[in-house]
Amino acid sequence: MRSLRIALAQMNPTVGDLEGNVSKIIAYIKRAKSAAVDLVAFPELAITGYPPEDLLLKSQFIDDNLESLNKIRESVQDMAAIVGFVDRKDDIYNAAALIYNKKIVDVYHKMYLPNYGVFDEYRYFQTGTRYPVYKLADTRIGINICEDIWYPEGPSHIQSLAGAEVIININASPYHIGKGKFRETMLTARASDTISVLAYVNMVGGQDELVFDGQSLVIDQDGTLIARGKQFEEDLVVVDLNLESVMMKRLHSPRRRQEVIKLDKSGVEKITVPVEKRPSKRKSAPLISSPLKVSAILGPLEEVYKALVLGTSDYVTKNGFKNVVMGLSGGIDSALVAAIAVDALGKENVRGLFMPSQYTSKDSKEDAYALAANLGIRMIEVPIDSVFQSYAAILQEEFRGLKPDVAEENLQARIRGNILMAFSNKFGWLVLTTGNKSEMSVGYATLYGDMAGGFAVIKDIPKTMVYELCTWKNSNTAAAVIPERIFTKEPSAELKPNQKDSDTLPPYPLLDPILKAYIEEDRSFEEIVSLDYDAKGIEKVVRMIDKSEYKRRQSPPGIKITQRAFGRDRRFPITNKYREF
Amino acid sequence: MRSLRIALAQMNPTVGDLEGNVSKIIAYIKRAKSAAVDLVAFPELAITGYPPEDLLLKSQFIDDNLESLNKIRESVQDMAAIVGFVDRKDDIYNAAALIYNKKIVDVYHKMYLPNYGVFDEYRYFQTGTRYPVYKLADTRIGINICEDIWYPEGPSHIQSLAGAEVIININASPYHIGKGKFRETMLTARASDTISVLAYVNMVGGQDELVFDGQSLVIDQDGTLIARGKQFEEDLVVVDLNLESVMMKRLHSPRRRQEVIKLDKSGVEKITVPVEKRPSKRKSAPLISSPLKVSAILGPLEEVYKALVLGTSDYVTKNGFKNVVMGLSGGIDSALVAAIAVDALGKENVRGLFMPSQYTSKDSKEDAYALAANLGIRMIEVPIDSVFQSYAAILQEEFRGLKPDVAEENLQARIRGNILMAFSNKFGWLVLTTGNKSEMSVGYATLYGDMAGGFAVIKDIPKTMVYELCTWKNSNTAAAVIPERIFTKEPSAELKPNQKDSDTLPPYPLLDPILKAYIEEDRSFEEIVSLDYDAKGIEKVVRMIDKSEYKRRQSPPGIKITQRAFGRDRRFPITNKYREF
Repeated sequence: MRSLRIALAQMNPTVGDLEGNVSKIIAYIKRAKSAAVDLVAFPELAITGYPPEDLLLKSQFIDDNLESLNKIRESVQDMAAIVGFVDRKDDIYNAAALIYNKKIVDVYHKMYLPNYGVFDEYRYFQTGTRYPVYKLADTRIGINICEDIWYPEGPSHIQSLAGAEVIININASPYHIGKGKFRETMLTARASDTISVLAYVNMVGGQDELVFDGQSLVIDQDGTLIARGKQFEEDLVVVDLNLESVMMKRLHSPRRRQEVIKLDKSGVEKITVPVEKRPSKRKSAPLISSPLKVSAILGPLEEVYKALVLGTSDYVTKNGFKNVVMGLSGGIDSALVAAIAVDALGKENVRGLFMPSQYTSKDSKEDAYALAANLGIRMIEVPIDSVFQSYAAILQEEFRGLKPDVAEENLQARIRGNILMAFSNKFGWLVLTTGNKSEMSVGYATLYGDMAGGFAVIKDIPKTMVYELCTWKNSNTAAAVIPERIFTKEPSAELKPNQKDSDTLPPYPLLDPILKAYIEEDRSFEEIVSLDYDAKGIEKVVRMIDKSEYKRRQSPPGIKITQRAFGRDRRFPITNKYREF
Repeated sequence: MRSLRIALAQMNPTVGDLEGNVSKIIAYIKRAKSAAVDLVAFPELAITGYPPEDLLLKSQFIDDNLESLNKIRESVQDMAAIVGFVDRKDDIYNAAALIYNKKIVDVYHKMYLPNYGVFDEYRYFQTGTRYPVYKLADTRIGINICEDIWYPEGPSHIQSLAGAEVIININASPYHIGKGKFRETMLTARASDTISVLAYVNMVGGQDELVFDGQSLVIDQDGTLIARGKQFEEDLVVVDLNLESVMMKRLHSPRRRQEVIKLDKSGVEKITVPVEKRPSKRKSAPLISSPLKVSAILGPLEEVYKALVLGTSDYVTKNGFKNVVMGLSGGIDSALVAAIAVDALGKENVRGLFMPSQYTSKDSKEDAYALAANLGIRMIEVPIDSVFQSYAAILQEEFRGLKPDVAEENLQARIRGNILMAFSNKFGWLVLTTGNKSEMSVGYATLYGDMAGGFAVIKDIPKTMVYELCTWKNSNTAAAVIPERIFTKEPSAELKPNQKDSDTLPPYPLLDPILKAYIEEDRSFEEIVSLDYDAKGIEKVVRMIDKSEYKRRQSPPGIKITQRAFGRDRRFPITNKYREF
């Protein structure tokens, strides 16, 4: 029976760390070799990490990446490897090298370059024009890259019509909620449409605002899922493919024959890989990881939580930090961030700063301390009233006769920001900020105050989801870590007497759907009103969103979780007089 | 004699301000009408402003822009107008409408979409495929848009071969040093190559990080400059074109005949504009602005200074502010920013804050006050030592036994940042930051400290150029505004005893060329070393640049002046382990 054993190396590279990425790739090649595979595939741009952004404009960087490919080539023996790298011909290409026995057999160039959302690939790359089909022993294989697979008329279609039985698609596909399911549905359709086995290998890990979620897939010609890699973890997925069934199914498809007749053969190239011997120790070799096994999908909240944990741990460690510090106010946002930080970095590497003022309630203090105790993290207390008074004194003359207002409120938040940064500067702890997406949207946050820090963990999490994630966390830990009262008390910034978020903002269960409609779905004012919200309220919210762009532009990066995050994903002008109504 | 009178309306739109932009366009149409022109041309995306960024993803925004075009159409009588807008067919296009007598005769779609540097046009637009040539009375005209003109084989080439005698290219071309000259050289070649009159109309004004410099041009078929609009100001350039000379020259060009024979006519369309009567009051009409007159080019430093003034005034006023405040330290950077602010907004709208500490020298105080007096701006003094002491007190326990270091230095800068923001919040003054490009490059600036503010005026000006601009300013003002000692004393942050910039950084005349080579020119380490700098020193500088990306990501926007600014122009990952050496 014709068969092929493939491995998908779902790895976590670091952008720019060519040496580290090469070592990791070579280690995976060894593991794949010991699993006696015919072929191992790595993610898109595995050598450079993704996205390398303007590093791609540096000629030396391209040279070094080519040099890295050369090192990897040397380590591939009696098997094939597909490695994502940057190719340079007349220009640069997002490319996949097919290596066999220390030789580069061919290089595929990505044809569909994404240039929307967080992607800027037209900024860097030329598009490919070739549709190679490789014959590896007795199997025909097509290789393509990430975006290529999303187009029904794209390379997978053409390669399969030109004979490819297995399509290997290498990816750096960033996570957002529900993306895994969406992707799996599309790939299932693509596998059945092309009557081929589809092997999808994805990157894993955090890179600035992006998290890659892994979840590599193998789907057969019937659309049956035969393997799924882990989510948010490195994995090596090893699968034996039965190729007889592909040919059988194709023979019985009149529709396919129609398509083959109509196939435009320009660009199609058939290339034979010079296979000398196939892996012999098949029977005895232990299959590594989850062979022929489908990893279970995480529940929706667990999925988001894990994305946040991975995004945080990778941002902190890949940037050379070990410890973090954050303000703990006794509120729900900082509670969630603290829980994530502990899961990401270990409790001994997380510090909480409690910075009470005259407006801090007794409850807040108790809740903050209870949280810290539950998490087992060290709490440092630094009261801010004396500093606030000294600011008041030096501003007294100029502010004489004026009522306290947002100036004084922000000052308190900024004193806290300064104290956090003083600890950061003194001890080398990275500051995590604790603001959520609802606040970031409407500008309910103080620039240089609670927005001060290196990484904004929950920047893309709406407030209502903050509650859901905390509930999930509590019910999935031996003992609840987040004290009950943190859920039940009314949200407050505690910057003036009896302040409540709801003084300024609609209640979050009303606010969050408006934010989603406007920010994530680009809905018009009329469409949002038709969702049955109060027109005046929506108008106010939309104005607040538009007016806060200047604050967001100066906010630290945070993890993309939704369909559209702030940052690279949503590029609005600050100077913008557009009013829809 | 065949002739055509055209007007180039070099206008300053505001992004998103459809109503305001329409009014402005209609006013220019009236002025052009009273100058009895055959045709008036407006900049690229004049209706929406440029760049509208993700506003383009809003369907309502596209609708509103089409509605705006409709209003403009109504105002065009017995003349032609070319108006930049967003067209929607199967997708959206960066487009130019040719309007004649209240009718839209045709719409041209931009063919070359820039997607490098500060540009992201593939994120939004489809490319055009048509090369229309219009017959307006007895003249054949080709229209194209901005980037289109930069390609020798582009639409101008094809339109001219297909008969166009006049090429009108509408632009939103952002300024950087030397761009005007570069542009003029290219356009001169393009006019001679195509043997046509080239009319280049550019936008003017500031939009976030960009400044459009105007400097519209008309160049004849011999490459002779016949009109140049003002730099950094609105202008209406009216010119009479002699079309006989174009035809005469073409008749005598065998090379052109060769090209016409070879012309690929696919996509070429000939469209006749239904002209009923041509403007009759020609003789009597006063020619507005600088007809047939070439505005002189500003000197290089004056050019930069004016770009900074326009960028600042537009950012401040288009965002609804009237007043600004900035820290005045007695140093050269804040002196330059203050001078620019006064020229941009008037002295009565500019405030200086002097915030001395124990490390502030007597000279600094005298210099800061002398500067404020020379500029005629109000100075507010707020000493920071008492606040610093109160921070020290609350941090004492945790910092016990540790030497003062960057934590304490940054704290002083952050106290100043807080005070500036308190004035901003209390009085609605926008904070201008005063850091230069050299500091931003190597991270010699305090996040939330001296980096705190709404607009970073000289963020893209290297320190050595700060001195040059101050020298220029002093020698171009009746009485020198920047006190002599500000030029001669050694630069210092004054955050600890006897601190000098040169303790940490190479001297600026050595540093700035390294920064330019690495940041603006993407030179490799070896190339920079070969420029005859000390290798160890370069290594240190490059590391500092790479490591400071996280700070730059949180900095306020500032005006692009060099070939490559920070911000949208240079997109580097924060998490980045690439080391070239």
